[in-house]
Amino acid sequence: MKETRHDYRELSDFVKKVFVHFGLSQVSADISTRVLLEADLRGIPSHGIARLLRYIDGFKTRQILTDAVPEMLNETDNSIVMDCCGGMGTAVSHDVMNRVISKAKHTGAAFGSVRNSNHFGIAGFYAMMALPENMIGIAMTNTAALGVPTFARQVMFGTNPIAFAAPADREEAFVLDMSTTVVTRGKIEVYNRKEEPLPDGWAVDKNGLSAHDPKSLLADMWSRIGGGILPLGGLGELHGGHKGYGLAVMVDILCALLAGAPTGPDIYDTDISSARVSHFFGAIDIARFRDPVLFRKDMDNMLGRLRATPKADEEERVWFAGLKEAEQTKHNMAKGIPLLDKTEEMLKRVGAETGIRFDA
Amino acid sequence: MKETRHDYRELSDFVKKVFVHFGLSQVSADISTRVLLEADLRGIPSHGIARLLRYIDGFKTRQILTDAVPEMLNETDNSIVMDCCGGMGTAVSHDVMNRVISKAKHTGAAFGSVRNSNHFGIAGFYAMMALPENMIGIAMTNTAALGVPTFARQVMFGTNPIAFAAPADREEAFVLDMSTTVVTRGKIEVYNRKEEPLPDGWAVDKNGLSAHDPKSLLADMWSRIGGGILPLGGLGELHGGHKGYGLAVMVDILCALLAGAPTGPDIYDTDISSARVSHFFGAIDIARFRDPVLFRKDMDNMLGRLRATPKADEEERVWFAGLKEAEQTKHNMAKGIPLLDKTEEMLKRVGAETGIRFDA
Repeated sequence: MKETRHDYRELSDFVKKVFVHFGLSQVSADISTRVLLEADLRGIPSHGIARLLRYIDGFKTRQILTDAVPEMLNETDNSIVMDCCGGMGTAVSHDVMNRVISKAKHTGAAFGSVRNSNHFGIAGFYAMMALPENMIGIAMTNTAALGVPTFARQVMFGTNPIAFAAPADREEAFVLDMSTTVVTRGKIEVYNRKEEPLPDGWAVDKNGLSAHDPKSLLADMWSRIGGGILPLGGLGELHGGHKGYGLAVMVDILCALLAGAPTGPDIYDTDISSARVSHFFGAIDIARFRDPVLFRKDMDNMLGRLRATPKADEEERVWFAGLKEAEQTKHNMAKGIPLLDKTEEMLKRVGAETGIRFDA
Repeated sequence: MKETRHDYRELSDFVKKVFVHFGLSQVSADISTRVLLEADLRGIPSHGIARLLRYIDGFKTRQILTDAVPEMLNETDNSIVMDCCGGMGTAVSHDVMNRVISKAKHTGAAFGSVRNSNHFGIAGFYAMMALPENMIGIAMTNTAALGVPTFARQVMFGTNPIAFAAPADREEAFVLDMSTTVVTRGKIEVYNRKEEPLPDGWAVDKNGLSAHDPKSLLADMWSRIGGGILPLGGLGELHGGHKGYGLAVMVDILCALLAGAPTGPDIYDTDISSARVSHFFGAIDIARFRDPVLFRKDMDNMLGRLRATPKADEEERVWFAGLKEAEQTKHNMAKGIPLLDKTEEMLKRVGAETGIRFDA
């Protein structure tokens, strides 16, 4: 698949204008654009600008309400429960994480749950917001059901990502941003397009047995006949699949149950979006434990040793979570963001529809 | 391997007396006994009474200091950093988690890190302490290095378990208690004794390649030549091994770096114990988000649906984290705790040495 690189600023201008065209406020458009392009910068195009059309379709079908006014359901000095009221997940998430960080400055630790939201982009974006404040940042979201409990045969929870960020000094920050399923549906779709069998331990079929045919798996999942993606750790308990299953449910508890919202099987997923998803955000002030300067130096020491660990035969390098993404960000900021031809074509179509010029 | 069941109360009396015999205070002996036997009750004998001799050896070599006086390094209204000063991990952990819960009652969320500690038993014990208070409980610990970073060949982090507990109403509580490596060393040792090859995705050898011979793996790990256990998700990135690696480092950050303590490769492990380990504890008050009664009902609904999910062909049942352990607890409390012959023999030897009668 051919790729062409595009300047960050040009893409950013285009996407902002498109969001405003479809009814987002300037502030919401700015933030949503930053979240989307942050994914592209970090080398996670599945959550980047390639997703723009899905958001637009969401605006059109009013699955995403551009005029929603989020409602604060509960607020204390260190907690928030917000109803996003079907609005843009990115904007409300950015707002809630900002409030959480602000509360944590005064109280040391604060948390927020958001319900009735839409796709919020990469979880890591929000966790990373805590870094400049010398805080540990946490962000999670549930999604429509795609994951199958250990020993089961039908989907009961989402890909339910967990993001956790902690600052270092000279080293890049530690930024873990991981789905709690082995893979996301996007990976299954890639195998389907390539007409390749799925690796063992990725998914089960409608009978709960190891699934290798991506085409029938996707069809059976789509029609809710059964089958789905396995939790991190894979099939059964031999490789710890029950652990990934537990982590996914933990995410549902923090995102949805603390906010009084539905979990996976009750979140309706369409071609366009996962509506009614819930998020969870947290910030913990390092200064409540020790001098953040010393903490960051110790982070340098630990992370530096991790990436200097002797590599395995036939491997290139040892990383730590967030390092590859930070390097990608610098590279893509300097050289431009790589876009697949089909993404470029989509952007041109959006440009033609909206009258906003896309500089390809 | 033959098993005989023993009454909880009799075992408890015996272990308490043994702990006091070797110098623990009565309070510390009581708590340490509860933690140990909770593991046996829940069906996790690797962390139960079978470990008694290791604690005794720790007392004798003074790797565990029975007369240690823990030192509070930092305390705010919602945070604690405690130096265990080489004392018994169970007692100080119980104390810190109690303080964390008490602080969370006033502040909504509180956290504590403990350094310079010893093996604290099952992490789940401390997370579960939050349940009667309508709180979410969190407990983690690092351990001596056994786990290999993705694409590397030598151990850099421990089995670093995460425990997360949330209360339900009629259903059993959700209690996730999982190492962040695929398996712990105990499982490798079992395969070694059985002289069976290790499954793919459990461990790598000194060259960072898939390890199947448990004997040479254990020898190379022991002599620090290289090789070790893989993070949850297994070898490389295909099944998400980088996610388990990230979770393990997250545990090190929360346990050790918040307390200014060493991580895996600097924690010295001997036959007897892992000394200088660090722990992390947290409690989050559900009432800061919503009515705990409603939360618990929603937990019932979610957990009930999870365990009622249609099972896969050839499987028995679908569980959720903590359900199997809760059922085991009831069963073992009623029928007695099953002890392997070799564990029984060990207890008899301890009885003979201490003059405390073990009723076999």
